[in-house]
Amino acid sequence: MAVTYLSEQVSFGQYHQNIIDQVTTRLEEGLPGSWQIPSSLREAMQYSLMAGGKRMRPLLVMAACEALEGNMDAALDAACAVEMVHTYSLIHDDLPAMDNDDYRRGKLTNHKVFGEATAILAGDALLTHAFYLVAQMSGAYGIPAERVVEITMDLSELSGPRGMVGGQAADMEGEQGLTELSQLEYIHLHKTSDLIMFSLLAGGRIAGADAAKLEALRMFGRKLGLAFQIQDDILDIVGDESKLGKKTQSDIKQEKVTYPYFIGLEASRDEVLRLTKEAKAAVLEADFSNPSRLLEIADYLMHRDH
Amino acid sequence: MAVTYLSEQVSFGQYHQNIIDQVTTRLEEGLPGSWQIPSSLREAMQYSLMAGGKRMRPLLVMAACEALEGNMDAALDAACAVEMVHTYSLIHDDLPAMDNDDYRRGKLTNHKVFGEATAILAGDALLTHAFYLVAQMSGAYGIPAERVVEITMDLSELSGPRGMVGGQAADMEGEQGLTELSQLEYIHLHKTSDLIMFSLLAGGRIAGADAAKLEALRMFGRKLGLAFQIQDDILDIVGDESKLGKKTQSDIKQEKVTYPYFIGLEASRDEVLRLTKEAKAAVLEADFSNPSRLLEIADYLMHRDH
Repeated sequence: MAVTYLSEQVSFGQYHQNIIDQVTTRLEEGLPGSWQIPSSLREAMQYSLMAGGKRMRPLLVMAACEALEGNMDAALDAACAVEMVHTYSLIHDDLPAMDNDDYRRGKLTNHKVFGEATAILAGDALLTHAFYLVAQMSGAYGIPAERVVEITMDLSELSGPRGMVGGQAADMEGEQGLTELSQLEYIHLHKTSDLIMFSLLAGGRIAGADAAKLEALRMFGRKLGLAFQIQDDILDIVGDESKLGKKTQSDIKQEKVTYPYFIGLEASRDEVLRLTKEAKAAVLEADFSNPSRLLEIADYLMHRDH
Repeated sequence: MAVTYLSEQVSFGQYHQNIIDQVTTRLEEGLPGSWQIPSSLREAMQYSLMAGGKRMRPLLVMAACEALEGNMDAALDAACAVEMVHTYSLIHDDLPAMDNDDYRRGKLTNHKVFGEATAILAGDALLTHAFYLVAQMSGAYGIPAERVVEITMDLSELSGPRGMVGGQAADMEGEQGLTELSQLEYIHLHKTSDLIMFSLLAGGRIAGADAAKLEALRMFGRKLGLAFQIQDDILDIVGDESKLGKKTQSDIKQEKVTYPYFIGLEASRDEVLRLTKEAKAAVLEADFSNPSRLLEIADYLMHRDH
């Protein structure tokens, strides 16, 4: 299936919706009915994959690949892989032993519907299958095996013990109370930025980005991820519950320290602006042939209200 | 580090112990102290990796690679990868929501020591890091990237929703009562054989095995894994608790259906003999240059009493 390539002609909103639709379709195809998978496991995987969301990480994979005019069919599979990793992390984070959440995006969490055991396994299965989607890009789209190996290493590093899982573990350790902003930054960088960074690197590597462009994508991802998380902290204080689809003030109620807690609301807003500006500068300096969507994403995330 | 290559000169028992020692050392090195990993997560990962066991899957990776005189340093890393996947599966299986076990091999289970949340994350981290160990074989040992991609696909397929996780999910679905031997075989094949099959394929692929030899290794793994699991079912009835390091009769007490339940103890023993014989025949027919350790492993597993 060729990916519809509408980028030039459409607004950012339409571009985003187009990618949401393509990713959702591809995720549904991603576990073919012909594969023998126990029904409870399959349903639990599909349930959380289809729970919606902004598909921000897929958006970044696609935009990074498009910035270098790479193979967009391969990028769509990498986009689905990163969405599977993100989804698994949400399923496990919501478990009673972790954040113990009953709802996410207005829907019951995975373990509330399928039970804890199946939710744990669905998370495990999504994480494992993400690596399959990455590995098959070589045979399916002719992406050189060396690049696929590098994407695999990135995914494992940035979502594993030194990356996203490490950030989650540090977040839990920190529930006894963080005392320094640098500790919070460590958590945000790993829990959030690392997978965002992976998304950008994957898109870039598929398109054969050189070392300088990969470094620019890495910097863009690091700063954008941090800005995204600080914006989340801000929206938890000043956001509109109906737009966010969740209760605000939850950080304060749970006595969670956040950026506004350490430096105040206004300085946090300034930090989002500064990081977004620096992220865009990193991309602009690196001479991509088609960077406009990356820049639009940065602006979109900075101005989002949910 | 060159892997000590003692195979020719030593008994099978010494060979096995040598591999146990090498894998244990490499697993300890596998999470360098220089890597920033939250301490609770690092300790939980190490705790279960160092909990011992027969290291049967690593043994199979090494023996398969040795059967074709492949790169044994790379095989050792693949061996550690499969041990990480096996270890993660045990940590998650032991959780209260799953089998709710307090002890494994005479030691407290991971969640009893570190808490459920850290145990879930330690499992996630081990699974994720296993893919890193596989991917880095290309740069570290010059294994062609195409082979590394194939090993990655195998690992994801055989440990994911169609493989080991699928087997675990089917096992849980089946707790309401299996009625046919074919259902139990499905569970055994995926829960146990698939990762054993992966171990053999990984060793073979590192050594550049051709399609016929890979098929022989696949067949060897399938039959050996099934024999291994039936032997487990038998030992649960007739085994010696002090040798097994766990209580016997647990399947009967938990009303778990097993091979002996369906076909009786003697027919189960015959099945182990038949499967082991067929497994060895598959290897013997495929003309490996150095198959003796693979054959010895098959005999060892058939005669084991723990």
